[in-house]
Amino acid sequence: MPPPIEDAWPAVCLVRPQMGENIGAVARVLLNFGLISLRLVAPRDRWPNPKAEQVAVGADVVLKNAKVEWKLEDALADATLVLAATARPRGLEKPVWGPREAASKLRAAIAAGERPVVMFGPEASGMETDEIARADAILTLPVNPGFASLNLANAVAVFAYAFAEARQETDAPSWFRLDNPPATQEELEGMFNHLEQELEHGRFFHPIDKAPLMKRNLRALFLRARLTQQEAQTMRGVIKALTIGRGGRKKDDA
Amino acid sequence: MPPPIEDAWPAVCLVRPQMGENIGAVARVLLNFGLISLRLVAPRDRWPNPKAEQVAVGADVVLKNAKVEWKLEDALADATLVLAATARPRGLEKPVWGPREAASKLRAAIAAGERPVVMFGPEASGMETDEIARADAILTLPVNPGFASLNLANAVAVFAYAFAEARQETDAPSWFRLDNPPATQEELEGMFNHLEQELEHGRFFHPIDKAPLMKRNLRALFLRARLTQQEAQTMRGVIKALTIGRGGRKKDDA
Repeated sequence: MPPPIEDAWPAVCLVRPQMGENIGAVARVLLNFGLISLRLVAPRDRWPNPKAEQVAVGADVVLKNAKVEWKLEDALADATLVLAATARPRGLEKPVWGPREAASKLRAAIAAGERPVVMFGPEASGMETDEIARADAILTLPVNPGFASLNLANAVAVFAYAFAEARQETDAPSWFRLDNPPATQEELEGMFNHLEQELEHGRFFHPIDKAPLMKRNLRALFLRARLTQQEAQTMRGVIKALTIGRGGRKKDDA
Repeated sequence: MPPPIEDAWPAVCLVRPQMGENIGAVARVLLNFGLISLRLVAPRDRWPNPKAEQVAVGADVVLKNAKVEWKLEDALADATLVLAATARPRGLEKPVWGPREAASKLRAAIAAGERPVVMFGPEASGMETDEIARADAILTLPVNPGFASLNLANAVAVFAYAFAEARQETDAPSWFRLDNPPATQEELEGMFNHLEQELEHGRFFHPIDKAPLMKRNLRALFLRARLTQQEAQTMRGVIKALTIGRGGRKKDDA
């Protein structure tokens, strides 16, 4: 018998999952397809969750090692590439990939040293737009337009299966640069916050009710560019250089 | 929004399913990927099953239209191509296909007028060898050898997703003859029974404890040949011609 498969990347991140049974079912199907890294953001019920353990069957190790965070930004802090599984891209300017394309790109990214995380939303409502906005790309499944709402574990099953198929591919796509380390979400977040504070100071976000949309669009633009660590640093230097001497800057905004 | 997808073929056949929740989850994920034909063989609990309806969510139409039979041969009677989803081919001489290959071949078969059925075994134990022996080919999923036991609905999800991807392919493989109608399982079953009775009469199955294996190997041979209706009829003529005048034949064995 061939050896067990236990790939640490990609990690799967469940955003505000509700039912313990579904979390357990996700753990099981991840390990079925050789994935072991589960992250949970603000699970509705208490954690650890006995129902999750019951459904996970032999995959309790995936549950035990699951990283639980209250804030999505903490769960994504070390990620260098983030996918959001959703049927509704809602007008965000992001690449949209099917499972095969996503799996193939993730495989190439991991080979290049990246740390990708794939987000799945809560059972009933899906992810919020601001959560999806953190993603570099959208993962969509080719579902029936007449009945598109998938069970959470089934959606993860399809992705994990597609990733398992991609393990056997021999041609690595060249979407990812190999020369320089990519920026993590934490580094990008620091840059965005810096930029947004300075833009607020300059009354850029006008009218004010359009501010969230304007921020999302700015983020989408930089996410698409796939900044390296160095470039994220450079951008912060740019922001500083552009704003220096404007006066009234708070001390903590760099 | 594009129109709903509701493909009558392939049908999915759950062999001796145990938990109503799993049957409901299968119905849901079938409709998620545009498949509507569900067959159940000897479900463990009473039918209709309220737990199945609860889990099926908006896919109750798939449950309502499900064909329920007590014997597998009745559930497969009209099928012209049968796949068995199993991780353990157990030495049967049958083609083994991954989800993509299976989906692609099924699509071509349906375009050629075939009626394919994909069997999935019970949750705990999987299918019996005699059940798997009825299949023309084996469907295997690329699972982790260290943790291969999939939840039933997740296994169906992977297959249904692969079939949905195959809908978008433009190149139809030419595995299937288009000229003559293929034999149904019922027609093949009649031929096998006829052949086996005559072989028993001729004491072919010796030693007797090897009879089941010998029968399975014979069936596998003819299934691989993908007989047409005409060829199945011809084979029965051959058997008659070979056995006529042996004496002692029972009246009901043709």
